[in-house]
Amino acid sequence: MRKLSLFIATSLDGYIAKPNDDLSFLKIVEQEGEDYGYAAFTAQVDTIILGRKTYEYVLKEIGSSHYDNGTRDVYVITRTERPGVGRTTFYTGDLKTLVEKLKAEDGQNMYCDGGAEVIDALLKHDLIDEMTISVIPILLGNGTRLFKDGRPEQRMELVSSRSYESGLTQLQYIRKRT
Amino acid sequence: MRKLSLFIATSLDGYIAKPNDDLSFLKIVEQEGEDYGYAAFTAQVDTIILGRKTYEYVLKEIGSSHYDNGTRDVYVITRTERPGVGRTTFYTGDLKTLVEKLKAEDGQNMYCDGGAEVIDALLKHDLIDEMTISVIPILLGNGTRLFKDGRPEQRMELVSSRSYESGLTQLQYIRKRT
Repeated sequence: MRKLSLFIATSLDGYIAKPNDDLSFLKIVEQEGEDYGYAAFTAQVDTIILGRKTYEYVLKEIGSSHYDNGTRDVYVITRTERPGVGRTTFYTGDLKTLVEKLKAEDGQNMYCDGGAEVIDALLKHDLIDEMTISVIPILLGNGTRLFKDGRPEQRMELVSSRSYESGLTQLQYIRKRT
Repeated sequence: MRKLSLFIATSLDGYIAKPNDDLSFLKIVEQEGEDYGYAAFTAQVDTIILGRKTYEYVLKEIGSSHYDNGTRDVYVITRTERPGVGRTTFYTGDLKTLVEKLKAEDGQNMYCDGGAEVIDALLKHDLIDEMTISVIPILLGNGTRLFKDGRPEQRMELVSSRSYESGLTQLQYIRKRT
């Protein structure tokens, strides 16, 4: 069965962005030639699931080629119907149904690229199989939390942890299913 | 100058307790003969600051000898005046004033043993110099957060990270003052 993974950076106090989608805190760990395993991770992925706001943010900040480059299936979770673009589908149906259908298909792994709302929905339905969390050495004090209140308890298994010279610590877990 | 430290366990999703002060999730990392550095840490400490609710919780669960054993100064932060017991003082004044006074005195390090309200007040006043956070491999989904919203941004410096066989990862930071 294909796995659905998170690969995400948070501040030590658990925020993935400061208010107003400010991601500038990520700059404190930027180092020439160091991608913290991102390229190796995405090389195992052929399907991306993400929220509409995150999709539009990336379109604006990085450009459409980041997702719509023909190499991967992209599912944008949205409430507004919209025709697809290349391998990008705008999905207005039930998230759990989509993920269960995709997991049952053949293919490489799947990656949820955010945002916080989609991640929260996936966690509530216990659909995340693996998470790589990069802890940035800063307390932001406010912002968008990676983990919202009101989810079920879930045991995780630590696969690895690694610290980098920048002070980033990367923790990798798989969902422990008993 | 004496340092004020945290030494605390949180779930991967950032809770130090489940609702109703339920700490049973800590059991998943309990291992014979492994204290995750707690004894070595407290050996460097001669002063403890903690909230009144945490004090009473420990009194009930562990007994009065945990704090009132004559070996360390204990400051219980409370709104209700109460005569001291041995080296335990019930402090109703301003927290910042107390910590700044204690830091300026001679002595070993100081340790804040919780709870979440006192930690939050100390972080808001930028009085925490060092924190050792043990990340327990579980998502609790709900509970008391270690880091509340509404604090100032603070840069931290990673000192060490260490993973244990139980899946606990311990991250140690010092406050980076520029």
